[in-house]
Amino acid sequence: MLEVECPAVTPEAVLKASGHVDRFTDFMVSDSTTGDCHRADHLLEEALQKLLDDDDAGAAALTPHQREEARELLATVEELTADGLGDALEKYAVKAPETGNSLSRSYAFNLMFKTSIGPRGDQVGYLRPETAQGIFVNFRDLLYYNGNRLPFAAAQIGQSYRNEISPKAGLLRVREFTQAEIEHFCSPEDKSHPKFGTVAGLTPLLFSRELQMGAEKVAKPMSLKEAVSQKVIVNETLAYFIGRTHLFMLAVGIDPARLRFRQHLVHEMAHYAEDCWDAEVHCSYGWIECAGLADRSAFDLTAHAAKSKQDLSFFEKFDEPKTVTRLVAKAKDRKALGIAFKKEAKAVLAALEALDEAGAESVKKALESEGKAKLFIGEKEACGEAAASAATDENTVEVTAEQISVEPFTQKVSGRSIVPSVIEPSFGVGRIIYCAFEHSFYVREEESKGGEKDGGENKKEKTSGDAQRTVFRFAPAVAPVKVTVFPLLNREAMDSKAREIERSLTAAGLATLVDTTSTTVGKRYARTDEIGVPFGITVDGASLEDNTVTLRERDSMKQVRVPIAEVPSVVKALVDGKRDWGSVQGSYPAQAAPAEK
Amino acid sequence: MLEVECPAVTPEAVLKASGHVDRFTDFMVSDSTTGDCHRADHLLEEALQKLLDDDDAGAAALTPHQREEARELLATVEELTADGLGDALEKYAVKAPETGNSLSRSYAFNLMFKTSIGPRGDQVGYLRPETAQGIFVNFRDLLYYNGNRLPFAAAQIGQSYRNEISPKAGLLRVREFTQAEIEHFCSPEDKSHPKFGTVAGLTPLLFSRELQMGAEKVAKPMSLKEAVSQKVIVNETLAYFIGRTHLFMLAVGIDPARLRFRQHLVHEMAHYAEDCWDAEVHCSYGWIECAGLADRSAFDLTAHAAKSKQDLSFFEKFDEPKTVTRLVAKAKDRKALGIAFKKEAKAVLAALEALDEAGAESVKKALESEGKAKLFIGEKEACGEAAASAATDENTVEVTAEQISVEPFTQKVSGRSIVPSVIEPSFGVGRIIYCAFEHSFYVREEESKGGEKDGGENKKEKTSGDAQRTVFRFAPAVAPVKVTVFPLLNREAMDSKAREIERSLTAAGLATLVDTTSTTVGKRYARTDEIGVPFGITVDGASLEDNTVTLRERDSMKQVRVPIAEVPSVVKALVDGKRDWGSVQGSYPAQAAPAEK
Repeated sequence: MLEVECPAVTPEAVLKASGHVDRFTDFMVSDSTTGDCHRADHLLEEALQKLLDDDDAGAAALTPHQREEARELLATVEELTADGLGDALEKYAVKAPETGNSLSRSYAFNLMFKTSIGPRGDQVGYLRPETAQGIFVNFRDLLYYNGNRLPFAAAQIGQSYRNEISPKAGLLRVREFTQAEIEHFCSPEDKSHPKFGTVAGLTPLLFSRELQMGAEKVAKPMSLKEAVSQKVIVNETLAYFIGRTHLFMLAVGIDPARLRFRQHLVHEMAHYAEDCWDAEVHCSYGWIECAGLADRSAFDLTAHAAKSKQDLSFFEKFDEPKTVTRLVAKAKDRKALGIAFKKEAKAVLAALEALDEAGAESVKKALESEGKAKLFIGEKEACGEAAASAATDENTVEVTAEQISVEPFTQKVSGRSIVPSVIEPSFGVGRIIYCAFEHSFYVREEESKGGEKDGGENKKEKTSGDAQRTVFRFAPAVAPVKVTVFPLLNREAMDSKAREIERSLTAAGLATLVDTTSTTVGKRYARTDEIGVPFGITVDGASLEDNTVTLRERDSMKQVRVPIAEVPSVVKALVDGKRDWGSVQGSYPAQAAPAEK
Repeated sequence: MLEVECPAVTPEAVLKASGHVDRFTDFMVSDSTTGDCHRADHLLEEALQKLLDDDDAGAAALTPHQREEARELLATVEELTADGLGDALEKYAVKAPETGNSLSRSYAFNLMFKTSIGPRGDQVGYLRPETAQGIFVNFRDLLYYNGNRLPFAAAQIGQSYRNEISPKAGLLRVREFTQAEIEHFCSPEDKSHPKFGTVAGLTPLLFSRELQMGAEKVAKPMSLKEAVSQKVIVNETLAYFIGRTHLFMLAVGIDPARLRFRQHLVHEMAHYAEDCWDAEVHCSYGWIECAGLADRSAFDLTAHAAKSKQDLSFFEKFDEPKTVTRLVAKAKDRKALGIAFKKEAKAVLAALEALDEAGAESVKKALESEGKAKLFIGEKEACGEAAASAATDENTVEVTAEQISVEPFTQKVSGRSIVPSVIEPSFGVGRIIYCAFEHSFYVREEESKGGEKDGGENKKEKTSGDAQRTVFRFAPAVAPVKVTVFPLLNREAMDSKAREIERSLTAAGLATLVDTTSTTVGKRYARTDEIGVPFGITVDGASLEDNTVTLRERDSMKQVRVPIAEVPSVVKALVDGKRDWGSVQGSYPAQAAPAEK
């Protein structure tokens, strides 16, 4: 997979082509007195929900018809236009939250941060609202780097910027966030994936359109192999990325029971999309979209090619050259044509050559029936209907049957140009981190007559007198700190031994903390548990004599005694997932707690 | 070292406090006809240089006085104001480049990209021009994360944005670039560094102020230990980071002979800076500043504390509590004071408490000489002279000797508040990459009767018929791809063996390419040399029989034969710098070239 780093400040033309300048909007209303701004859809949803709740509680007396109407509206808020939202807000007399003031009409607000590029102040730019566009506009170079072969994928990790009307919920809705996007380019006719077999057996919770429309409305586990063969997921490549996303989410600490893949309903999808699935994670804010996986067909490259007039197609070589007959228009006598059209002759020749099958057919018919035909020689700004309506006398010439011919021409062709399809997995990194934090957090009850011991004297391990200890069970792979080193006592010799161990751990590439504070080791364990450090090493009196230390695992709170020289490789193997805690326990003697001398 | 990731879109207040809103400008002139913008200093420098060159060539006839004037101006262009630049451009009749049109007067142009935060459109924001400010405004939290201890450092790597008037020279002057900054916070009175010993013996090329002002004007090697003891570098911490920067530059492939540390001349430094050194690398554009290392004293935290009214000081505990006697002003009778000042009484009490030693002294004197004193009870917007001039009748009250007392008070104090100094190494990542590319690039002449062999038949290794081969000698640590796998022939069995090796290399964390094209292996070697892949593995006929492959090193072009099972660990050790090529050559049999069957 190729990786790119593209600029965040993006010229307007790029985001005009992608549709963001015209359509990347939310609908907003403002408080008529304070000017405070609110999302129109959020206000309407809250108002409708409250009305229905009040009705349930007997505080509102809706007729069955009114109730049904409110329920239907609530289910379709996302589909309303600015006017539709404005009308609904008026109908239900929705006021501004907190102030109770009246609201403006609903209007579209573009979520892109606008700026000006260069010193003249005449070039509009926007901060990118997603990282994907940088990959599309660099498609030609990426294809070249891949040796002009399909399929291939390019990824980008970087900041995206959305001027949210109401940022909220911590990392879940922010104006600046880390996005990770992959654009997988492939033939529109072959969306198989060579590595699909590696994930085909996974059974993520799939919340298909059918299940969403059904009575139960719950996601069900289904193997990806089955999902593809039953056409629940549209193709192998999309299913492959769903599988990889599933594995990734589990690896970073997401609970599989609280992870589902929800298929977009037909009306949720853009017209060009073949299929879309959101990876949703359940947390205290409900089901949160953390990644989106879509088959976007050839939409993006087609849009950029049209706007930039750059060829963003791929030349697909046939296995065997094919014999193709097509209509070819050409000048009967180039010199005569030159005299007839003078300085426009070149444009006329180019226009003849550029005619597609349908164009050549219509010119041929006109020549046969009228002896002449109109030819569009202007810039090829648009095609189809738009081109026809844009044609004026100024950019159209008349050619006659004496000047040109349109005849079938048979040739061997070695391949054809296609615009690749793109399959896009897109990740909101902050949202995934937030959900991983929630799913990794737990509270350990301290048992009054047991728990972790603090030294040989069986003192109870206490957390500042609290009977509860909060822990992050971060997987070693994602824990920001992998190991903490504790000198048991505040003594020079133990400190320097601890620093020596720290250096060897750092040299092994392990992020290491040393806690030399003089608090009890129990409190210090509590402190690293709280920040999710998976392993702890304690240097005690015996360490100074026999060069061994205790190694503690965070969640089991079990300890083993390990020679100092072996510590870096043991911890590294644990962190890299090449060894598990059980195997380490099998190799080294258990120890109840560090020997405090 | 702590690491943070702060937003790029920054509220105006932050960059007002840091001085960027008012002073982060370049001087610009515009073409009176086309409106094109140019850097005023660049145009003046080019014009003066051309004038002097012309004079050298006899094409201009300057008097000795005129010549001296032009030379002096050229040396001091950087110090000119907008008006000074405008006058000089007029004096030397400088015209717009290319068009020859007249120029506007020179004016300041702020280099920050401006935008608007939030939907109301009333909150000005800028894209950060440097990553440092995010660390300063988060200083309190960072100090807390470090256990409220000094010294500590925080780093940030991310995009910075500067709306350059004329971007140029590839990665050297761009509008959006990756910056890596460290802010090392320490006591203003103790700038020693515990790890200084690890770099004290290094002898980078230092281009001190003295050498720059001297006759020779060349940088000389000097040990960092000597530089600190001779006060060439102001303190150990700054010298430590110079040493680490030197090591880093070498590690990424910068030629030590083309790397120097240039000290800022006194007039180049901001008034608050204690000492500044630029890491400069020589490339085809001359000496390029790739990193800046500065002791910025307490400037940044002081500026943010003043503007934000947040306490950004550090409480430094004394080893032993000290006995301190100071003047304390207080109400003789709080109740009487309350009656006298009514609702202002609270502000009066607060003002008494807030008096510093000098303030208390002056109140004491006034009470003794006049029986009354003026007391400023307004908001503490400024101190010193500004406070005195801001005092009006409205925020000043009169207190009498009957109401208050000012007496010496002796107490034990355990420490004091200080604003930490900051030492800042700041790296322009793109510039370093550009210079590393230049320093890593070389052309290998193919010897006509030797060179690298392509197979047992002694065919010459050719690069598309070219006698020269371009190579990037990227250090394995920074090479984007670490190893390429080549199946010698386009056969199913060799391809699948190559894919198997690729998987084992990828599993070892090594970025791997497979080149299955059917070109000669010599051409394929040339291709990986060209993109700087340090190692190549060739699967040949023997590989299918005895499970060994050849391993080739890019720069020596030497090959050894290694069992496939050992390949990942051997290459990994080479890439991690744990083994060198010589040791690998000592362990495995040499091979002239892959055996082509």
